[in-house]
Order: sequence, then structure tokens, then C-alpha cells
Amino acid sequence: MNSRISLLKELRDKSPLVHCITNIVVANFQANGLLALGASPIMAAAIEEAGEVSAISSSTLLNIGTLDGVSIASMIAAGKMANEKGNPLVLDPVGAGATAFRKQTVSTLLAELDVSLIRGNAGEIAAIANFPWDAKGVDAGDGTADIVEAAKGVAVRHKCLVAVTGKTDIVTDGAFVAQITGGHPLMSQITGMGCLLSAVCAAFLSVGKNHPLEAVAYSLAFYKQAGERAAELASGPGDFAVHFLNALHLLKDSDVNQASIFIQKEAFQQ
Amino acid sequence: MNSRISLLKELRDKSPLVHCITNIVVANFQANGLLALGASPIMAAAIEEAGEVSAISSSTLLNIGTLDGVSIASMIAAGKMANEKGNPLVLDPVGAGATAFRKQTVSTLLAELDVSLIRGNAGEIAAIANFPWDAKGVDAGDGTADIVEAAKGVAVRHKCLVAVTGKTDIVTDGAFVAQITGGHPLMSQITGMGCLLSAVCAAFLSVGKNHPLEAVAYSLAFYKQAGERAAELASGPGDFAVHFLNALHLLKDSDVNQASIFIQKEAFQQ
Amino acid sequence: MNSRISLLKELRDKSPLVHCITNIVVANFQANGLLALGASPIMAAAIEEAGEVSAISSSTLLNIGTLDGVSIASMIAAGKMANEKGNPLVLDPVGAGATAFRKQTVSTLLAELDVSLIRGNAGEIAAIANFPWDAKGVDAGDGTADIVEAAKGVAVRHKCLVAVTGKTDIVTDGAFVAQITGGHPLMSQITGMGCLLSAVCAAFLSVGKNHPLEAVAYSLAFYKQAGERAAELASGPGDFAVHFLNALHLLKDSDVNQASIFIQKEAFQQ
Repeated sequence: MNSRISLLKELRDKSPLVHCITNIVVANFQANGLLALGASPIMAAAIEEAGEVSAISSSTLLNIGTLDGVSIASMIAAGKMANEKGNPLVLDPVGAGATAFRKQTVSTLLAELDVSLIRGNAGEIAAIANFPWDAKGVDAGDGTADIVEAAKGVAVRHKCLVAVTGKTDIVTDGAFVAQITGGHPLMSQITGMGCLLSAVCAAFLSVGKNHPLEAVAYSLAFYKQAGERAAELASGPGDFAVHFLNALHLLKDSDVNQASIFIQKEAFQQ
Repeated sequence: MNSRISLLKELRDKSPLVHCITNIVVANFQANGLLALGASPIMAAAIEEAGEVSAISSSTLLNIGTLDGVSIASMIAAGKMANEKGNPLVLDPVGAGATAFRKQTVSTLLAELDVSLIRGNAGEIAAIANFPWDAKGVDAGDGTADIVEAAKGVAVRHKCLVAVTGKTDIVTDGAFVAQITGGHPLMSQITGMGCLLSAVCAAFLSVGKNHPLEAVAYSLAFYKQAGERAAELASGPGDFAVHFLNALHLLKDSDVNQASIFIQKEAFQQ
Repeated sequence: MNSRISLLKELRDKSPLVHCITNIVVANFQANGLLALGASPIMAAAIEEAGEVSAISSSTLLNIGTLDGVSIASMIAAGKMANEKGNPLVLDPVGAGATAFRKQTVSTLLAELDVSLIRGNAGEIAAIANFPWDAKGVDAGDGTADIVEAAKGVAVRHKCLVAVTGKTDIVTDGAFVAQITGGHPLMSQITGMGCLLSAVCAAFLSVGKNHPLEAVAYSLAFYKQAGERAAELASGPGDFAVHFLNALHLLKDSDVNQASIFIQKEAFQQ
């Protein structure tokens, strides 16, 4: 895991351009979060330029939070360009379990594109895995399914990394599972916290292409650490969001608790 | 008014899903405000899923702040589903007095849907009532019309509650008028303050269906109290918005000044 | 430059309505910034009302940050109405150098409309001037071209003011060049900082129509001063944005360092 040590420094040195096709609720928070981290955001959902912007970007994020029929074509154009350039492509399947339209769109995107990482909450990953789950709108909801198994199944089927974030995060390539502890409950009371995390993973993946599982595990540990720092200073969700952006900016690599990452190899075969 | 005592607790216990078809300016603030309050927001304006999302939600909010031709059909689909499910439906007629398109859209929505509550500023309610008023864009503007009479007339005509918010708030069902005092001038210097209030009313209505007038009066009193708390800590509009989100999260039922609500029965007949 | 002395007071007295056709990333920050300043924002991009809203507004801003094919027609309708009413029209060519679609759209808008001011970063103005530049998405990027010459050329060709903002700002009408120093590096780490500045210029232009070059120079000096104030109080980009909104609200005319403005007449002819 020595490669992790330089990821944050490399990201800040390169300031990778991250193309986000995203939703109207979180676009501002996502852009500010990427800037605070040291990356450079661009949001360009128009079909006239979505592919061209992915071509000049270091990584591309597709977020279906406020999807409409038009934006699916833009997501495919942007995703295909990211694939062609060999750049990381992250899918955030917001509310995948909430409606037929979202579930169908996720299927279409996964069929058309080679996704590097799917990052969602338990309800979203369960929906993609066709595991039973009681999602609540765009929130995780509750369920008893084995989410680690669900994630590994999705990773194997779609040949990608799958991260499931919540109280404890996991990321898996289907064989290895990294588990990341930490964070703070206030992280679930800010809109776009998961959406920004997907963008942060896209930024770290662009500088950690050669060790993607480690890059995502590092992203998750970094993010949880930022949440802990922000929570120390916050009185509620309002100033937590403010301190969180500060923490993304101020955290140093040495602040990230690498002990919070536990990577396990399993004899998982399908 | 004993029913009011448990509204906030019930809202936080149930965390109702509130479907907002809303505008690009306030979507983030609205989602964060609902989360801070203890509700769960979902924004889904696409015609492919607007009805389905209202079907799984506890209440639905239609906000015309950055309306386009496409979203009207989604609003009607979502509103009809809320009606079918017997769930509260709130209309926020942003800038109803500003353009013919907005005024026409409000007429269409009110003709097609059974709205539970219309919440607007004086200029917006005057426009719906066809009372003379000099609105200023999406802000209230000035006028001399009797806004209480305007609100009562709209309530009777559309068989719904009407809330007019500003320095003093009122809410009426056409017969009773509740007047709510308090709040702070900084509340008018943050974009989306009225839009978020409409969403907060939608959340409280979902747990206060059986006493809707009281539920809305409580919402308005709660909101004004949050504004007062935030103003005590704020240096300007920037940190006021931050403290306001905190206040939505931290206020307890016992903090709400129920004495600020004055409900008056009038011999109002039309 | 005595006219400058009363601009801020006049703006706050009149609270001009500023119509912004803008992007999903910055709409909230722009609206809150205009309110904090003392102006009144309205965002209305639908073709059904874009012209009507510009007709009732004191100035109009066109921002191409998350452009799509539909919004170009709205921008033209709004811009033509601003021209017809003789009201200031500001163009913010976000990412003009990033894609063919954006560059083409800027050409179309400049061909169809009489723009009062183009405000962009160095990369955007270089793109419009067809000067060589290595823009980075929507960020300025790097280049060696003479940006003052580029700006003067664009000003002469399109008979408008051109402001190029960054570490040092300039604004020119093609003959005079005002240079404004100050500000703080954190200003480049908040999304929408340039976008809001364009809206602030639109607000000041509405009360400074008779001295537009001075009005824009004043806007830039005011904005840099707000950035300095905010930076004094900020720990990072998160609370910088909060303090910046406060500063827009709290700054007085006497706080603005007019010595930061240096206006130079040049023997520039084309």
C-alpha cells in the first residue's frame, strides 16, 4: 500500500479535470468539494459537448440524481469517450432502487459502458444486484441482504470496482474487499455527501489508475477522516458542510488514518 | 392545539419522504433544510418517474421557480399521484405575478390538481387572487390590497389552505385565519427561504394530515423560531443560512413559541 | 471618478432586479450573492418567459456554464429585450475555450446581441480573441498571449467593455484600460466566484449606466475588497464562501479601496 502515500500530493500537483454529469441538487457542493480537494471540476451535460469535455478530462463521473431522458445520451457519449481515452469512469446510481426509470437507466449505462467504479449506498447496490432491500427514495433504507456479497457479485458481473458507503464503507473488485471504518453520523445529514464522494473517487482514480482498488480505499479513508475533522468543529449540519469543505482542503496525507483501511483477500469465485 | 405538541417528534420519528419538483436555485438548500429538519428529500422532475416518486413519498411539493414547458407535465403527473394516494400536495407559486407564463401555469396546476396548501409571498397570492399588486420579480414587492382577504378568497375558491409569508405570516382555510409573528429580517435576504418553508410545510403536513391548518401554523411558527435562533448567531446573510440549517436541526418542540400563533375564527362566507 | 462614490448606495437604494440565465452549479451562490449585495435576483431561462423577465429587469446576465441547445434561444430572447429596453447586458463566456459548442455559442450571442460587458478569465477572453491559450476546462489555465491586447481587441470588435479577472483584473473599452489589484487566492478556489462577479457587474451597471467603465472598475474593486475581508476571517474555502457573502452585505462604499483602481488611457487604435 506504499502507493497510497503519494496519492493526495499527486492529485494536488496535477489538479485533474473531473467531468461531472450530475444533478441540480449537488452540483455546487460537488464543484466546491473538488476545488477544495485540489481537483478541477467541469459540469457539461449537453449532448453537443459531453463527449468533447470527457476527452479533455482526467476522469468522468455519471450521476443519475436528477436524471431526464435527454441526459442519458450525454452520459453515454461522455462515458464512451472516457473509455476510449482509457480514463476512469465512475457511476453514481443515485436512487437506483427508487424507480423503474433509474434502475433501467443504470442497466443501460452498465451495458453500454466500461465503468471503473460504481459507488452507491446499500440500497442502490442491492438494487443493481437484484438483492431484496427496502430503499427509501435516494437514501439507503434498510435491509438484511448481505451487502458485501451483493457488491462482489456486481463487481464480478460488470468487471469493475464497487464501493458501498455508509456507516462502514467497503470497496471490492470481486476478489479483494477493503473495509473502511470511521466517519461521523452528520455525514448522512448533508445532501450530496455521497455524490461528492463519487467525484472525489473519480479524482483520486485519475492519479491512481494503476492501483484502482487502493486508490478508492484511500479516497474513502480520506473522506471519512475529513468527516471526523469537520464534526469536531460543527454544531449541526449547517456548519458541518462548511467545515467539511475546509477539511477537504486542509487535510494532509499524514492525517489520513491508513489503519482505518483493512483489505482482505477472499476465496471468492463466481 | 394539543396535536401540535407531537408534530416535530413525529416528523423526526417517521422521517417522511418529501418529493420536490423544484428549481435549480434552491434545490440544494431545500434538500439540506429537509434533512436538517429530520425529513428525507427526493427531487425527481423527469416525466418518466415523477408520478412514481410521488407514489412512494409522504408528500409532494411543486415549485415553479425555474419552470420550463417540460416540467409542467411532470408536476401534473406528480400532483395527480399525490391526490390519488391522499397525500399532501403543496404548491409554491414562485413569481406568479412576474410573468404571464407563471400565472398561466399556476392556473393550470390549480385546475388539474387538488392542492392542500398554496404558500407564497404577498405578491404571489395577490396575483392568484387577481388583486392589484406591484410584485418585484420573485420578491413580494409592495401593494395596498388586503392580503388576508385575498388569501381567504383563494382558499375558498380552490378548497385549500393558503399561507402568505413575510414579516407576519398568515395561513387560512377561508374561515379560520392563523397569524404568526416573529422571525428576522435576514430571512428575506437568503434565496430559497420561502421555497424551503414550503418544503417544511409539506413535511409537517405529512404527519399532521388530520389537522392541516394547525400543522401549517406550527410549521410557520417553527420556521420563524429557527430564523430568530440563527439571527442571534449570524453576522450577515452568509452565516445566517448556515446557522439556520443548524437551527432546523437543533430546535426542539419546546423551543417553538406557540404563543406566536394566534388563530382567529371569522364569520367569513362567500 | 466621483460618480463611483454613490454607486453602492444607489444600488442598495434601488435594489435592481437582475435577470440571470445561468448554470446549475452557481445559481444558488449567484442569487445569494446578489441578495447580499442589495440587488434582487431572478433566474428565468424558459423560452416562454425569458424575454418578459428581461423586460421587467434592470439588467440581464447570460452565463453559458451549463449550456444546452434549448437555452441559447432563451438567451437571445432575453438579450434582445435588454437591448430594446436599453438595459445593460452582460455575457459570461464560461469555458469559452473548452469546447467548440461553447465557442460557437459565444460567437452566435455576440453576433445577435449588443453586449455591454464580457467578463471572463484569461482563457475565456483569449478564446474569443482567437489568441493562443491553454485553457483548463472552465478554469483560466496558462498562456503567454498578451491578455490586455486580447481584451482590447475584443472590446473594439464587439463595441463593448471587456473585463478579464484573475490575480489582477482589467477592464477596457478598447481605449482606456483600468487595472485593479487586490483580492485573495482563496477567490479562485470557490466555484462560481467569477460567475457571481459577472452578476455583481450587471447590478452595478444598472445604476452606473452613464459611466459603464467606471461602474465595472468599481465592481471589480469592490469584489476584491470583499475577498480580502472574507479571507481575513476564513480557515479554508468552506467558510471563505460564507464570509464572502457576509462581506458583500457588510461592505460600505468607504471600505472600497479606490486606490486599487488604476485607469490608463492608451493610444490604442485598430
